[in-house]
Amino acid sequence: MVSRQPPLSLYATVRKMSTFAGQVDRHRGVVVKSTIAATEQEKSTEFGPKLARSLIKWSADEQVHLVWFRIARQHAHWISELAKNNFLFHRTSPDGNELWMYKRLRGESTSTVDSPHTYTGAGGLVIRDDHLLVVKEHSIPFWKLPGGYVNPGENIGEAAVREVFEETGIRAEFVSLVAFRHVLSGSFDCADMYFVSNLRPLTFDIVIDKEISEAKWMKCEDFITSPDVGEHSRFFVKTFFENLKNGITMKANKTIHQFTNKELINYAPSYIVPKNSGTDV
Amino acid sequence: MVSRQPPLSLYATVRKMSTFAGQVDRHRGVVVKSTIAATEQEKSTEFGPKLARSLIKWSADEQVHLVWFRIARQHAHWISELAKNNFLFHRTSPDGNELWMYKRLRGESTSTVDSPHTYTGAGGLVIRDDHLLVVKEHSIPFWKLPGGYVNPGENIGEAAVREVFEETGIRAEFVSLVAFRHVLSGSFDCADMYFVSNLRPLTFDIVIDKEISEAKWMKCEDFITSPDVGEHSRFFVKTFFENLKNGITMKANKTIHQFTNKELINYAPSYIVPKNSGTDV
Repeated sequence: MVSRQPPLSLYATVRKMSTFAGQVDRHRGVVVKSTIAATEQEKSTEFGPKLARSLIKWSADEQVHLVWFRIARQHAHWISELAKNNFLFHRTSPDGNELWMYKRLRGESTSTVDSPHTYTGAGGLVIRDDHLLVVKEHSIPFWKLPGGYVNPGENIGEAAVREVFEETGIRAEFVSLVAFRHVLSGSFDCADMYFVSNLRPLTFDIVIDKEISEAKWMKCEDFITSPDVGEHSRFFVKTFFENLKNGITMKANKTIHQFTNKELINYAPSYIVPKNSGTDV
Repeated sequence: MVSRQPPLSLYATVRKMSTFAGQVDRHRGVVVKSTIAATEQEKSTEFGPKLARSLIKWSADEQVHLVWFRIARQHAHWISELAKNNFLFHRTSPDGNELWMYKRLRGESTSTVDSPHTYTGAGGLVIRDDHLLVVKEHSIPFWKLPGGYVNPGENIGEAAVREVFEETGIRAEFVSLVAFRHVLSGSFDCADMYFVSNLRPLTFDIVIDKEISEAKWMKCEDFITSPDVGEHSRFFVKTFFENLKNGITMKANKTIHQFTNKELINYAPSYIVPKNSGTDV
């Protein structure tokens, strides 16, 4: 049977066949989510041809610079086909159930899309009268400040408050940021930033967590001079007292970004009380 | 033919068959790298049974709590089998060519293994006499500080120096950290931290990069009052002058971690010059 239609160009042919319908983001990337797109294309034999057609369509569209696939773990059989088509691994969701892959369609012209490579941690410097809240972990014979990793969506102060409670049972509230350190190559070859916040205790009875071997209120002076304290921990406590003496604090101000409307927190050192005014809190 | 050997238990049988030989890390995780392990096991039909045997072996070994697979992009056909065996996606290498997947063998007893969820950015506050180095991007009609993402392995000051040079052609050196902001949910649902450093310019002639539409030395006063400057940029410049007036700076001290021997940088606010001493630099 001879078609009465005129011959179609490759692009026009492809347009008439099934392709993936992605969302276009503000960086000219089209995003295909496997949990939405997979409904009719779960079988891996159908995935390859549909991907090939979709790439031809997107390449012809000057508005599309990047293609993203968000692959749920149950659609992991797509990944090998995407890798064969030169998609790169980008990042994973924090729960480990989704992988993002991407492919640039127009060289390096588009903005950077590196995956995040920094872990953030938060410690709590909690003082009751002239005693500091300290903990020991099972495998490390040194006293340290309670602390741990910042969760997704959590700010530094909230993370310190949560970790202090989890490890020691002490309820506390954020006062100021003390200082931070940046390890350039930490766990999993990632960078690691560790922020110490001064917290005001609201309760005083210690209940230790199973990941901690000991916790106690230790005289601040003893912490600063003890051989059972690491230099990296001592630095934060010395910095805190030095700045307290000089009336310097590091405030945290919550605000909303003027253009993106996203919540953000500004941290900046500032001068608080007159020097030598005798208010040695 | 009847075997003269006594019957073997399942575990003993498995021990005699081919399994993956991984490296055990200090967190009781065994790590299998596809680029090493794949030599004789590239075919996907062989991967599944070998993985099953390996999981039985590792599960019987009390020293092993976690199993990691580092999968190179050319071995992406392993991923779907790992996903079926309840391996989770963990993280990707910055070049997009490797994916880490993991599986816990003993519940939640092992330490946290979340993937990193924080981007770090660095901006440069560069002043020449009473003029500030500012840039405009193509699509955004506002003057801002030059800056961009911190690269893997790079510290905040180095990143600011590099970005200032890339965007404006100005060579500069790190002096101090000014302040930082933390966006809790930025690009790709990740958190974003943006650190602004004060840099001393070493050259003065501007050569703009293609990602920038304009760059110039703008009077500091004008930047602080201009309607063409966002609040989020103004905050850093105002903070800088406020702290300069009060003799407060934020020093960066490179050191080596006492126990891990890793390079780290401590950032802490400190008092520098006597207040009202007239040294208004």
